Amino acid sequence: MDLASTRDIAVNIVAEARAGILAHVAAGFSFEKKADRSFVTAADLDAERLIRRRLEEHFPDHGIVGEEFEATAGMGGYTWVIDPIDGTHSFRHGIPLYGTMLALLEDNRPIVSVIDLAGIGRCYAAARGLGSTRNGQPIYLRRLGREERIGDEVIALGERKQFVGCGLEGVFDRLMAGHPHARTYCDCFGHALAAEGSVGAMVDYNIRIWDSAASVLLVEEAGGKAVCLGERLDGADKRYDWVFGKPEVVEWVRVAISE
Amino acid sequence: MDLASTRDIAVNIVAEARAGILAHVAAGFSFEKKADRSFVTAADLDAERLIRRRLEEHFPDHGIVGEEFEATAGMGGYTWVIDPIDGTHSFRHGIPLYGTMLALLEDNRPIVSVIDLAGIGRCYAAARGLGSTRNGQPIYLRRLGREERIGDEVIALGERKQFVGCGLEGVFDRLMAGHPHARTYCDCFGHALAAEGSVGAMVDYNIRIWDSAASVLLVEEAGGKAVCLGERLDGADKRYDWVFGKPEVVEWVRVAISE
Repeated sequence: MDLASTRDIAVNIVAEARAGILAHVAAGFSFEKKADRSFVTAADLDAERLIRRRLEEHFPDHGIVGEEFEATAGMGGYTWVIDPIDGTHSFRHGIPLYGTMLALLEDNRPIVSVIDLAGIGRCYAAARGLGSTRNGQPIYLRRLGREERIGDEVIALGERKQFVGCGLEGVFDRLMAGHPHARTYCDCFGHALAAEGSVGAMVDYNIRIWDSAASVLLVEEAGGKAVCLGERLDGADKRYDWVFGKPEVVEWVRVAISE
Repeated sequence: MDLASTRDIAVNIVAEARAGILAHVAAGFSFEKKADRSFVTAADLDAERLIRRRLEEHFPDHGIVGEEFEATAGMGGYTWVIDPIDGTHSFRHGIPLYGTMLALLEDNRPIVSVIDLAGIGRCYAAARGLGSTRNGQPIYLRRLGREERIGDEVIALGERKQFVGCGLEGVFDRLMAGHPHARTYCDCFGHALAAEGSVGAMVDYNIRIWDSAASVLLVEEAGGKAVCLGERLDGADKRYDWVFGKPEVVEWVRVAISE
């Protein structure tokens, strides 16, 4: 597997999907309710269809798992995971902090990933061993300088209801009360900010594989740390609790939530 | 006073300041500590200096109050209030949700205002009686439709530490626990989203006149409601608690925080 060219193909596929998403935004769009009461739009469905079609053309042997359609099995241990529009709630309200997430797993470990924040024009990409980029420029998570304090870092959290969903709202409340700059920057926007160090860490609970795989690789390849704090089954779905970002801030979060 | 041309002059002045701010971002920038331990950058100081100079050229009789320099008195009851970079904490961390806020007060009531989100390319403007715009296009806060529920609206909050600063963290905690989509979208980003209805309401406590005046006019001229929930003196500074946005959501918030 040529990781650099696989990453570049993934970036191009997501760019094609982005054009479709922005066309839906410009035209206005319609909603349907999904079984779980979250909303799904024609933009989500079109984007996932397009990404699946392109992946099948380029990588006919790979499996595909997406948020909106049935999984297809592959051969050789390679599986793509797709969230065509992560942050659907933001998207349908016109909050520009939604995005497209795509990752390639090799035996369940991400090796290529893309997060595309179409609403604010930022595309992040990573490949195992080759580093992380934003709009093609390398990004690095440097360690905190001597004058920098963890208390000055922003810590990003998912929405409180995600923590409520797994009975762990105490974690959310403790971080909100215990850190002066804890903010809910939910979904892939917070993930991408963690990969470039604009937030010190992202703490996101009860999320699915297609909400975490791309981010974990992006953060690790930028020099950061990603720690899975928990996993559980929700019906047939596996859910994960993650913290990732600058190593010192990730450690601070681990201690803060275990106190 | 020709409100339309005054608004257009204000938009142009802010656009000139934006170019300077983005040049600082591209070049990297330096920090100094202000007396209150918040950070101020060369970008803040340069932007406020430029805006003051241009206002003095266009409106020599008007007073000017800004975040970074001493107030200058005017004649005739007109005063400009400037926050050159609202969201300094976001700005210095590379979170693109900071912005420039400018408003003209007539006897303490805002009549012209601009919020410029330089990091995401959105400029909002309003003039009393002439409506609100985003990048020149009118924006309207429509009432909730029959199928829309307040519980689906996003409610934006300032950071918890602002509420702690005036002993009202209970308000923050109650809204966070009581609404499924309460999120901290602090500073002018949350304000601007409230003016275009992407969030149902913004709840921002313990803020100064230059953090609120532009937003209040922008929301009211878009058809929304703005309610001052409290004011107090913090040393020589006056601080205000605001909720603004869609009328139904503003009312929901008022009830929720008084329970």
